[in-house]
Amino acid sequence: MGQRGYALWFTGMSGAGKSTLSAELATVLRDRGLKVEVLDGDEVRTNLSKGLGFSKEDRDTNVRRIAYVARLLARNGVVAIGAAISPYKETRDQVRDTFPVGSFVEVFVHCPLETLIERDPKGLYARALKGELKHFTGIDDPYEPPDNPEVIVNTGVETVESGVRRILSALELMGLVPRVDEQRADLVHERLRAVGQG
Amino acid sequence: MGQRGYALWFTGMSGAGKSTLSAELATVLRDRGLKVEVLDGDEVRTNLSKGLGFSKEDRDTNVRRIAYVARLLARNGVVAIGAAISPYKETRDQVRDTFPVGSFVEVFVHCPLETLIERDPKGLYARALKGELKHFTGIDDPYEPPDNPEVIVNTGVETVESGVRRILSALELMGLVPRVDEQRADLVHERLRAVGQG
Repeated sequence: MGQRGYALWFTGMSGAGKSTLSAELATVLRDRGLKVEVLDGDEVRTNLSKGLGFSKEDRDTNVRRIAYVARLLARNGVVAIGAAISPYKETRDQVRDTFPVGSFVEVFVHCPLETLIERDPKGLYARALKGELKHFTGIDDPYEPPDNPEVIVNTGVETVESGVRRILSALELMGLVPRVDEQRADLVHERLRAVGQG
Repeated sequence: MGQRGYALWFTGMSGAGKSTLSAELATVLRDRGLKVEVLDGDEVRTNLSKGLGFSKEDRDTNVRRIAYVARLLARNGVVAIGAAISPYKETRDQVRDTFPVGSFVEVFVHCPLETLIERDPKGLYARALKGELKHFTGIDDPYEPPDNPEVIVNTGVETVESGVRRILSALELMGLVPRVDEQRADLVHERLRAVGQG
């Protein structure tokens, strides 16, 4: 019985917590016995999109490449987590349409801009506000929030743990994560097989 | 029990038969119960490498992108078939080194240049010989054959069927394909499970 794969698509501004949340969630999902790959924006830019910039066209190309890889993984039973700003709603919706219904879960990682500017651990917002970084989402480049994301996490007010729990609950409701009971039953099955009783 | 993933890397000149062989092999491997994805050079150029040309640097970038996706798939139990000219030996060897030992199988699809020019179903060699296509492998761009590929298929003299059988035998010897007996045992297991005896 193969695991059902799907895409978990994190969208949100720089510094909102997409990478942190997706890494934490990956750990939890692996503990539940799922295969998981995180396609993080920065890592993907190195491996798949070197040379692309931050124009609308280049951002969209980057998003589509992540989606292409996520599709390959998902149809082979992997939970593919995409974590890139992916600021354009239409592009995200187009990406959603390339997945089977119910196999694309959009997670909007929201944090108010003032909070992002205040936290700014990498100093990127400060540089963007000074005009040293161009095409910076939220400063001189748009961010279009989703209308109907499956999950919203507001990292301006809630902790990483709370956000992970919220996403996990949604996935459980959608039947995309084995509940702990089912998991135990599977373990029993596996053990029976291992001792030759299966 | 998860399937063991690995990369099957087809290298060879344009028209040598990489796409045909890899598509046929994919069918056979799926029939044996394996998960398979074919990362074909042309398709990958559309999805991952639009804008790249045929300079050494761009070809290497394309090859590395295919390899990156193949690694993600292979470590999740998928047989990832890469089918791109990948003309540079050093680059192929670097790619090999990014896979666990025994998880990278290089298939050299060889066909003599004269035969390729003679067959030339897409008329590409004719155009390259007239100078209409630049950077064409084998004409004005190099092809460096592998020193020690796991499999060599000579499509100048052998049929697709023969080539597929040769590759399949090699994979069986390497323990990378379930033999038909093992497969039958697994089926019995599955059926027992399905009727609640597992």
